[in-house]
Amino acid sequence: MTEPVKMDAFRWDRANDPSAGVPLAVVRATSTEDVQATVRFAATHGLAIVPRGAGSGLSGGSSAIDGCLIIALDLMRDIEIDPVTRTATVQPGAFNAEVKAAAAAHDLWYPPDPSSFEFCSIGGNVATNAGGLCCVKYGVTTDYVLGLTVVLADGTAVELGGARLKDVAGLSLTKLFVGSEGTLGVITRVVLRLVPAQRPPSTLVASFASLDHATQAVLDITRRMRPSMLEFMDKTTINAVEDVTKMGLDCSAEGMLIIQSDEPDTHAAAEIAEITAICEANHTTEVFSTDDLETGEAFVVARRMAIPAVEQKGSLLLEDVGVPLPELGSLVRGIEAISEARQVTIAVIAHAGDGNTHPLIVFDPMDADERARAQTAYGEVMDLAIALGGTITGEHGVGRLKKPWLGDYLGPNVLALNHRVKAALDPQGILNPGAVLDVDVV
Amino acid sequence: MTEPVKMDAFRWDRANDPSAGVPLAVVRATSTEDVQATVRFAATHGLAIVPRGAGSGLSGGSSAIDGCLIIALDLMRDIEIDPVTRTATVQPGAFNAEVKAAAAAHDLWYPPDPSSFEFCSIGGNVATNAGGLCCVKYGVTTDYVLGLTVVLADGTAVELGGARLKDVAGLSLTKLFVGSEGTLGVITRVVLRLVPAQRPPSTLVASFASLDHATQAVLDITRRMRPSMLEFMDKTTINAVEDVTKMGLDCSAEGMLIIQSDEPDTHAAAEIAEITAICEANHTTEVFSTDDLETGEAFVVARRMAIPAVEQKGSLLLEDVGVPLPELGSLVRGIEAISEARQVTIAVIAHAGDGNTHPLIVFDPMDADERARAQTAYGEVMDLAIALGGTITGEHGVGRLKKPWLGDYLGPNVLALNHRVKAALDPQGILNPGAVLDVDVV
Ligand SMILES: Cc1cc2nc3c(=O)[nH]c(=O)nc-3n(C[C@H](O)[C@H](O)[C@H](O)COP(=O)(O)OP(=O)(O)OC[C@H]3O[C@@H](n4cnc5c(N)ncnc54)[C@H](O)[C@@H]3O)c2cc1C
Ligand SMILES: Cc1cc2nc3c(=O)[nH]c(=O)nc-3n(C[C@H](O)[C@H](O)[C@H](O)COP(=O)(O)OP(=O)(O)OC[C@H]3O[C@@H](n4cnc5c(N)ncnc54)[C@H](O)[C@@H]3O)c2cc1C
Repeated sequence: MTEPVKMDAFRWDRANDPSAGVPLAVVRATSTEDVQATVRFAATHGLAIVPRGAGSGLSGGSSAIDGCLIIALDLMRDIEIDPVTRTATVQPGAFNAEVKAAAAAHDLWYPPDPSSFEFCSIGGNVATNAGGLCCVKYGVTTDYVLGLTVVLADGTAVELGGARLKDVAGLSLTKLFVGSEGTLGVITRVVLRLVPAQRPPSTLVASFASLDHATQAVLDITRRMRPSMLEFMDKTTINAVEDVTKMGLDCSAEGMLIIQSDEPDTHAAAEIAEITAICEANHTTEVFSTDDLETGEAFVVARRMAIPAVEQKGSLLLEDVGVPLPELGSLVRGIEAISEARQVTIAVIAHAGDGNTHPLIVFDPMDADERARAQTAYGEVMDLAIALGGTITGEHGVGRLKKPWLGDYLGPNVLALNHRVKAALDPQGILNPGAVLDVDVV
Repeated sequence: MTEPVKMDAFRWDRANDPSAGVPLAVVRATSTEDVQATVRFAATHGLAIVPRGAGSGLSGGSSAIDGCLIIALDLMRDIEIDPVTRTATVQPGAFNAEVKAAAAAHDLWYPPDPSSFEFCSIGGNVATNAGGLCCVKYGVTTDYVLGLTVVLADGTAVELGGARLKDVAGLSLTKLFVGSEGTLGVITRVVLRLVPAQRPPSTLVASFASLDHATQAVLDITRRMRPSMLEFMDKTTINAVEDVTKMGLDCSAEGMLIIQSDEPDTHAAAEIAEITAICEANHTTEVFSTDDLETGEAFVVARRMAIPAVEQKGSLLLEDVGVPLPELGSLVRGIEAISEARQVTIAVIAHAGDGNTHPLIVFDPMDADERARAQTAYGEVMDLAIALGGTITGEHGVGRLKKPWLGDYLGPNVLALNHRVKAALDPQGILNPGAVLDVDVV
């Protein structure tokens, strides 16, 4: 496809990077062979390739660059479930939600659950090592990837790993490709580990008048138990969500926690009771819990709606910084200080249980000064996270937008090691150039 | 240390490779800096380095080569537990059992449990991506590795990852070093994810007159539930273990399953009842279950004792082949055929629940002909596993002994990819040369 109008749908991811380029063509692959042919063509002609899943990324990883070939995987969506080996073999374009549904038909579960699960692809999840809400208990995407088919920079397709829980023959290349954001190869098939169906969760919602009480409650909970979800929303977020949902959230609260327990039977009740007590000890102003699945899910939906809800207030710069759990309070307070100093609204949501926060920096795209202040705040939040021993990205990836901070975070030696691996696997530098690492196309 | 007699203790791992060489020196490191200095010296002088944990390996991965420097990590054993982030920060020489014990003191659990857990090091576990008995439910070593300090081939020390469940900044290099068997760097610090203490397990033991019934029972169990242990011993193994333990095992059985459930309360009882019913449907000749921890542990100890017990019968060639679960029966039957054709005893134990078997080929080291037949059988078992869609090593690693089969298993493209990564990280080829990949020291 080369018509500019049609290609427009493939130029941006959800970070809406204004500097996205214009591709030479978009190839909507239907097989590994299609991808191989495209990569061979690009290698021969020295063209850049941008692999693209569902384009829900938040770091500009799949935004177009001028003159590139976009390889879109959105037509490759087959899913096969093998209940005996408890694995799913999936084409990269299948949505996360589709894999979950196919597994559920066999009473199995694919845990990783980015908030975008209804509109992000498995290939994109693997390429970014996506997290989500349940990883506080169940781990991240890489923990479920057993095998991959990958098209390398010269067009060779390799099969790595497979439907075996244990395989240590040769280097751990499968895991190397997880999280590589399209810079090492194009993923055309994924073998995923499935687990037995999750037990129906109980849900607890607690509001706090003070931010510090909310973050302290998180620490007190994780020290003693392991909920299957432990999410946080700050006041700005609560209000934005309430504006959209009208569900009666406490709009005066400085912080709200949404927590689930999927322990069996009486254990869930005991866990919820203990969490309630912890919230009360931390001066919750309102705590509510329910076994009713629909009521519980309504609060989870509210949390998943946070990004689109805040987006109603203006354009967003989306952060994804994570810190060691004991620093969560300092991070959230520090973000507040940055917001005040730069005079921009920053809404904070967090996968609080693993210290991974999403500060959403809101700005008016028409106001050049505010935009500049937002951009400054964006960098300052990452600097703060690094200073607190944290990471610049917990789950969204470096993409194009966070690349300037990668070296500050990794330091020169680890950055050099990244470059060495990249150069070994993509010597021409044609795979997603400009994403994650700066490599010139030769 | 350079005295030949003292160095002898560091020349072999538990595979007792007769072709192990004589090192130039053994360096017993006490810090990352020691390791760096040694690697820099080796790089300058073009010397080979063999990293060594506890030497419990079964594939010759840490056996010496002539003129090498052995870097022994056995003196680096510090363990720090952080209950808030639920992580352990561990020096590589600490034993697996020591990490488990330190975690248990905080009511936490480090799941990976190779049978050798009382005498293998965490560094060795990470370097081989060790499995064990509980990985059928809880996954393998890599699933618990969050961060590493690694000394690279030029002596640079890099810190990868850390005490964060989620971190996707840059390529997934932490996971690349897991399972690299000392060929990419020397691991000097490991950050491990811990989970809440395991619930006390119930144990079930079932004997089968027919091998086929035993393997069918495994399939019927894994299709419906997820026990925390699902181990298999064949007749030869049962008899060898009974000779040592005199615990009254059914020595006429062709197969025995040792199974645990760690589900809570009534769920464990229900799971054990269901497994009992499955074993009965598959014509078990004797099935026994207990909630008593000591009685249960006695059977697990019997299973862990299998390798040493069979070792009483002669020298061993230790296999570690794994197949997709539905092929388990064909694998075990095929091994029987190889045993008959080559006229060598092959005892089979298996982490049956994940299709990972350890055929133990027994031979008289004084009988040259039998030794040759054992060696032939060793290769044939791997060929069989490959033909059944399986792997040549599920958890012990390729080391030096399985290297000739790695190319057959991976195929030329994946093998070439392994070489490319190796060359990028160790251009001189000084890190564990001769293990896993054939790379000449430049
Ligand atoms: C409202 C909202 C909520 C979100 N919540 C979460 C969350 O909770 N957790 C989380 O982790 N993320 C979240 N995200 C971010 C995003 O959904 C994830 O990063 C997702 O994994 C991207 O998948 P995708 O298919 O949309 O990939 P894309 O955006 O198309 O691409 C993402 C990156 O992966 C590469 N890529 C995609 N497919 C392939 C392939 N087949 N082979 C090689 N490279 C490929 C691209 O080049 C790009 O670098 C959220 C996004 C939105 C809009
Ligand atoms: C009776 C018995 C039962 C066993 N059961 C199991 C089992 O159930 N599951 C299983 O997976 N294994 C099992 N093993 C094999 C063995 O214990 C494991 O492979 C273990 O992980 C090796 O650890 P080690 O410290 O002894 O390593 P070593 O044998 O010293 O070394 C193993 C490999 O790792 C490298 N290495 C070691 N330390 C480092 C380091 N710090 N940095 C870089 N490279 C390093 C070495 O170079 C070598 O290649 C068993 C062994 C025995 C004897």
